[in-house]
Amino acid sequence: MATITAIGDPADPRLDDYRDLTTADRRPDRPGGRGLVIAEGVVVVRRLLESPYPVRSLLGVPRRLEELASDLTHLDVPAYATSADTMATAVGFHLNRGVLAVADRAASPDALSLARSARVLAVCEGVGDHENLGSLFRNAAALGVDGILLGPRCSDPLYRRSVRVSMGHVLRVPFATLPGEWPASLDLLREAGLRVAALTPAAGAVPISAAGLAGERVALLLGAEGPGLTDEALEAADLRVRIPMASGVDSLNVATAAAVAFHAVAPPVV
Amino acid sequence: MATITAIGDPADPRLDDYRDLTTADRRPDRPGGRGLVIAEGVVVVRRLLESPYPVRSLLGVPRRLEELASDLTHLDVPAYATSADTMATAVGFHLNRGVLAVADRAASPDALSLARSARVLAVCEGVGDHENLGSLFRNAAALGVDGILLGPRCSDPLYRRSVRVSMGHVLRVPFATLPGEWPASLDLLREAGLRVAALTPAAGAVPISAAGLAGERVALLLGAEGPGLTDEALEAADLRVRIPMASGVDSLNVATAAAVAFHAVAPPVV
Repeated sequence: MATITAIGDPADPRLDDYRDLTTADRRPDRPGGRGLVIAEGVVVVRRLLESPYPVRSLLGVPRRLEELASDLTHLDVPAYATSADTMATAVGFHLNRGVLAVADRAASPDALSLARSARVLAVCEGVGDHENLGSLFRNAAALGVDGILLGPRCSDPLYRRSVRVSMGHVLRVPFATLPGEWPASLDLLREAGLRVAALTPAAGAVPISAAGLAGERVALLLGAEGPGLTDEALEAADLRVRIPMASGVDSLNVATAAAVAFHAVAPPVV
Repeated sequence: MATITAIGDPADPRLDDYRDLTTADRRPDRPGGRGLVIAEGVVVVRRLLESPYPVRSLLGVPRRLEELASDLTHLDVPAYATSADTMATAVGFHLNRGVLAVADRAASPDALSLARSARVLAVCEGVGDHENLGSLFRNAAALGVDGILLGPRCSDPLYRRSVRVSMGHVLRVPFATLPGEWPASLDLLREAGLRVAALTPAAGAVPISAAGLAGERVALLLGAEGPGLTDEALEAADLRVRIPMASGVDSLNVATAAAVAFHAVAPPVV
């Protein structure tokens, strides 16, 4: 059972994992940072507690820690109770959600094993926006995607803002960096028996619902909003698929386009 | 041709339409506000210029007004050029996008006419979050939805943040408030020959891709993220459809769920 300890001094060294979370050079995901995973709010903290990430401690106002009491029953980690003001001083901003938890990172799964066991994978190229990446994980979790592989120029899914926007699903959906040189590294997916389908707004691509992918084993390549996939990535794919769109409209947000695509390749409804 | 006038004084009364945009009681969409439509950034300003909304003026840094020069050729409205600092002082915040335009509201289309001419409509209940509503309009525009009807407790699509998040598509996708008492007012849609399909995560609903709606004339009922549609709205629909989701996952964001549903009811791909 987690021990709840009251802390009154924002400078208390037991709060060091939570200190100055918004200061760029203290950001745990940055070089020189501590590589910690931060969960915010009851829902996301609960997902962290259920995840394989080794939880170090919790910090919250008493009311939020009480909400989590039953989740903490079997956990042997410290939980620090403070006032909202003490928490704000330590963390560096006022936290509406009232509770944080911090964990160490865990080893990523092996990309090839992940590809072999997956029916649908998402493969990201240049998804550098933390919130888009977080939304993409949330949509992947909801729509039954088995894992996410990160190609070049993707942001860190375990950065605090991605964790929050994903509603904690970055802690549940397996992900790994695709090893090797991009885009030749996509061969690993074919070795694993997946068809590699690149999502693009290009007119020459096949409408995704007519591409015969529903129920197939598929790796969906997704590029950043704006530039989209590079020509190299498009050429390395087995096929190019598109979401039919009205003329004169910019592309959809990458996480939204991914959701439409995930639904389209989901197993046929019985 | 728009006349470009340099303004140096942030207190200049010609900037009054743009003043204190973030102050709640000056918000143009609030009671006592001036009901103006504000567009931010080159892309969205361009959409406003192409829309039926009567543009009153533009305000921008010289570089952004130059980018818009060809769009302004046939327009007879004043364009005010200021420094970024003068603009920030008048507007109340520093505007990265460097240009604003302001327009009067225009009359909404008649809900029945809109329903009669539409193949796919979205009907919102309780979508009170400005950003979700803006994203919903963006997705509707991209995925060929012909219009949006607003039921009870929806926010104002023409509020500045919705306009921005929609990428200006609230200015292009026709919308109207559904008149009459909710949800009996949904009868108007049936009179217009549309099937009323309620989107819900409930297990008893039909998976949307198996509901036979592709290519049909459909009004899709959408509720707020979290509570979803009210029981009254669900009962008033002709059928209930769902997006199959993995167990243990919260619902999708309402605009994301809408995008998946819009794609699923889009005309069959030929």
